[in-house]
Amino acid sequence: MTVLERFLGGDQSALARIITIIEDRTDGYQDVLARFYPRSGKAVRIGFTGPPGAGKSSLVNSIARMLLAQGKKVGIIAVDPTSPFTGGALLGDRIRMVDMPSDGTVYIRSMATRGSTGGLAAATGNAAVALDAFGFDYVLIETVGVGQVELDIIDTCDTVVVTLVPESGDAVQALKAGLMEIADIFALNKSDRPGAENIAAELNMILEIKREKQEWEFPVVMTEAINNKNIDRLLSKIEKHIAYLHSSGQFDKHRREQIRKKIVSIVTAQINVVVREKLTQMVDIEKVVGEIYEGKTDPYTVSKELIRLSRMG
Amino acid sequence: MTVLERFLGGDQSALARIITIIEDRTDGYQDVLARFYPRSGKAVRIGFTGPPGAGKSSLVNSIARMLLAQGKKVGIIAVDPTSPFTGGALLGDRIRMVDMPSDGTVYIRSMATRGSTGGLAAATGNAAVALDAFGFDYVLIETVGVGQVELDIIDTCDTVVVTLVPESGDAVQALKAGLMEIADIFALNKSDRPGAENIAAELNMILEIKREKQEWEFPVVMTEAINNKNIDRLLSKIEKHIAYLHSSGQFDKHRREQIRKKIVSIVTAQINVVVREKLTQMVDIEKVVGEIYEGKTDPYTVSKELIRLSRMG
Repeated sequence: MTVLERFLGGDQSALARIITIIEDRTDGYQDVLARFYPRSGKAVRIGFTGPPGAGKSSLVNSIARMLLAQGKKVGIIAVDPTSPFTGGALLGDRIRMVDMPSDGTVYIRSMATRGSTGGLAAATGNAAVALDAFGFDYVLIETVGVGQVELDIIDTCDTVVVTLVPESGDAVQALKAGLMEIADIFALNKSDRPGAENIAAELNMILEIKREKQEWEFPVVMTEAINNKNIDRLLSKIEKHIAYLHSSGQFDKHRREQIRKKIVSIVTAQINVVVREKLTQMVDIEKVVGEIYEGKTDPYTVSKELIRLSRMG
Repeated sequence: MTVLERFLGGDQSALARIITIIEDRTDGYQDVLARFYPRSGKAVRIGFTGPPGAGKSSLVNSIARMLLAQGKKVGIIAVDPTSPFTGGALLGDRIRMVDMPSDGTVYIRSMATRGSTGGLAAATGNAAVALDAFGFDYVLIETVGVGQVELDIIDTCDTVVVTLVPESGDAVQALKAGLMEIADIFALNKSDRPGAENIAAELNMILEIKREKQEWEFPVVMTEAINNKNIDRLLSKIEKHIAYLHSSGQFDKHRREQIRKKIVSIVTAQINVVVREKLTQMVDIEKVVGEIYEGKTDPYTVSKELIRLSRMG
């Protein structure tokens, strides 16, 4: 049997192999994804983001366990673009699998660039499509921070849970960070620690503005992931948000927007490959580079001419 | 006088305005950069990266003060893609300016995406060109981590100093992080703390492999930025590295490679704009998106057809 046949038969080791193929962009990975798309779309995608040390992994694990107890199948993608310094994602999945059932109802995958690959956001989105096509009911995506890569990742999710801790600083910080814009739900984790009430009150105050404009409640849930406290409440808010997305028509709209972006990204990536080839055929790049290096011209003037020559502008 | 004239006349407030124009990609920013390129190329670019809390800012400030004492002009760009959570870059430049001379020999600029702009690496490279054209002898670029954005930033530098602290974990971690690949010099900061000797020994052991293959020594310098200890030694290693780059021909080669990349990025960005326009004219995107959403087709099959239609593939 091919790896694809084994995947379609529900073999998790084939799933792991397929995600590696997707991650490495091995020849033919696009054909694999093309086959997955029509099978995907059913899984609910929940994103979890927040600063390092906020307890996102514990929170995701707790939510996953609760979903598993409900008979749901759960795929988890842990993205850690900053892992180089923490090593978090390197061993993470193996450590995290320990307390998870091995009956095929859950699958955990860590993804991290170690400073070389790039395309992490695209790879994560593609991995989510694979998990979706594999048959998971929920795909939980966990990532650190709100850099561009992380934002692109979070953008592939239906519901976004931002996790903060009392030590994260004040809510105004979160506001500056753009977290208010992406958060559907705030989980204030480690909420037994001092300052939790203060940051919750601040968050609630700032969120009032959003609540007035939209029908969604933007809840702040005080959690203690490690003690399994209020995880049920957080999950019910997640489910409520998904229901809200459906009833308001936003679910469809957002998913369609993602497809639109996907098309544009595939087309532009492909055309960029062609452009690069054309450029080298069209002119003596080394000569032009030398002229810029010597201060005789500049990259913008050169590029304008190249675009004119390519007849692609 | 226009802002460009004031810039060319050495007015730092005009420089600040210009960098904002570059950062925001205000109409005409490319024309400004086109004018700067022939004036740039003289400044030496030093990159400083490492984990949060390694004391990069103190180290950069110390190096800057030492260069200023030598009569050099120093521009500093502090890039903090993760600043949303730390708030570091938001107030950083103002705090840091306090202990710097106000005689026009130094300029500090913080750059950070607050989860919206993107293109941070390009903006930073462009800001470096502006500082170079403005007449600074050295451009010091400080950034956190080794994500893709940070790597792209570091790639615009001639010499890269990776800053670690004894608490950063072991050298094997740094190896995994890809730091070994980008580091020309290691600064082991806060080296008065326990474990400094150990991590230095580990680093040196791993670096032996690189030292055997290349003529550069890849030094590990034990610094205490806050006590100004061994900053002179670090600076002399930086200067030695720049001299090495020149004598080995790598300086030219790397600068030319940067120009080549810049051309490709300008051309592809421009063509991508055209492609997006073409796409919307060519087909009823909404209809195609709907078909993918309903599982009738997939983005890859659709994209192939679009590229064929566009005659750009």
